Amino acid sequence: MRIDIISVVPELLTGPLENSIVKRACDKGLAEIHIHNLRDYTTNKHRKVDDYPFGGDAGMVIQIEPVDRCISALKAERDYDEVIFTAPDGEILTQPMANRLSMFNNIIILCGHYKGIDYRIREHLITKEISIGDYVLTGGELPAAIITDAIVRLIPGAIGDDQSALSDSFQDNLLEPPVYTRPAEYKGWRVPDILLSGHEAKIDEWKHQQALARTAARRPDLLK
Amino acid sequence: MRIDIISVVPELLTGPLENSIVKRACDKGLAEIHIHNLRDYTTNKHRKVDDYPFGGDAGMVIQIEPVDRCISALKAERDYDEVIFTAPDGEILTQPMANRLSMFNNIIILCGHYKGIDYRIREHLITKEISIGDYVLTGGELPAAIITDAIVRLIPGAIGDDQSALSDSFQDNLLEPPVYTRPAEYKGWRVPDILLSGHEAKIDEWKHQQALARTAARRPDLLK
Repeated sequence: MRIDIISVVPELLTGPLENSIVKRACDKGLAEIHIHNLRDYTTNKHRKVDDYPFGGDAGMVIQIEPVDRCISALKAERDYDEVIFTAPDGEILTQPMANRLSMFNNIIILCGHYKGIDYRIREHLITKEISIGDYVLTGGELPAAIITDAIVRLIPGAIGDDQSALSDSFQDNLLEPPVYTRPAEYKGWRVPDILLSGHEAKIDEWKHQQALARTAARRPDLLK
Repeated sequence: MRIDIISVVPELLTGPLENSIVKRACDKGLAEIHIHNLRDYTTNKHRKVDDYPFGGDAGMVIQIEPVDRCISALKAERDYDEVIFTAPDGEILTQPMANRLSMFNNIIILCGHYKGIDYRIREHLITKEISIGDYVLTGGELPAAIITDAIVRLIPGAIGDDQSALSDSFQDNLLEPPVYTRPAEYKGWRVPDILLSGHEAKIDEWKHQQALARTAARRPDLLK
């Protein structure tokens, strides 16, 4: 799978995408992530990508020309399944959506920044708008990193232990049961006896009950 | 405001927190962000922070000892308003929650990683669990960066133009109207005439109508 990310602040993406699982998946050849600096697609001397909004608002708006030039250059090389824009008013990212996205071959993610992007970009160049949640951020770079992380870890082989991704929260609409590790007692706080018992069937039953109880208490909406 | 972030993969946080608005807010003295490597709080030779879960699950679990040691060291220096853990089954981050968090003086954010953290940490050391959305990620580092970005940009003075944060989506429960910038026409795609008219009152009315229409179409839940 190939992911092309377009940004005006590509430095924001280096830490999240050059470490951990995403890096490992790229090293294994399971994913290819290319970060493009939008300023490389400008034709003006100052590599300016934004301008004042029409109608007298505060803030700067990203212009359509460099974005169109960058997306067109990418599309000339290969077909893309989706051209995604990270927007606070997009469709909310969920685990089923991440599952679907992880099966694509090529996607582009355009990161918004400043006050927004020229709306004609959204109307004519973008095929899918995704929000990672109902809160406002400085730009679309962290959301692009989130989407990339959520997708790439689902590619078979990306996580060392395949079991691990399947038993995640949300994959079966149940939150995970509590987990514990050594020491069995710390400052008087003990691990539940059942987990130390060795009774596999009873342990599995306890975990399932805990998952149900936690979901009912914290996220009853998931059980509907 | 001071934010202490505890992580086993602190490299993931460098890009997002050392650039853009967050960096500028720190340079202006409006925010102080300290990243702590959990491995610095281990006592074993290999700086190991995780172990196998009790009860035979896949994946590794972060141990309570180094976490307790790190949080205790921080608490010995100052009082904290909240000790936050980024968890997929935590309370969902919203703009009102970000607004409240931005008024605190000191917070700690503990990033989960691997299969999870020993549940006793959540029961005894954590005061607030936050999820940024219903999807699973490699670790809590990106969520910690998201929470930090969402909070820091709200601190007065962090964004160059104060107007900018107030007119964001979600602050008035309305999505933002479309924005446009130069050129007025691109490949036959024109900016709406009203925005070029110069009629301030009519432009404001148009923007409000667009915000209402977009919210009704995309996020009717916000209008309830």
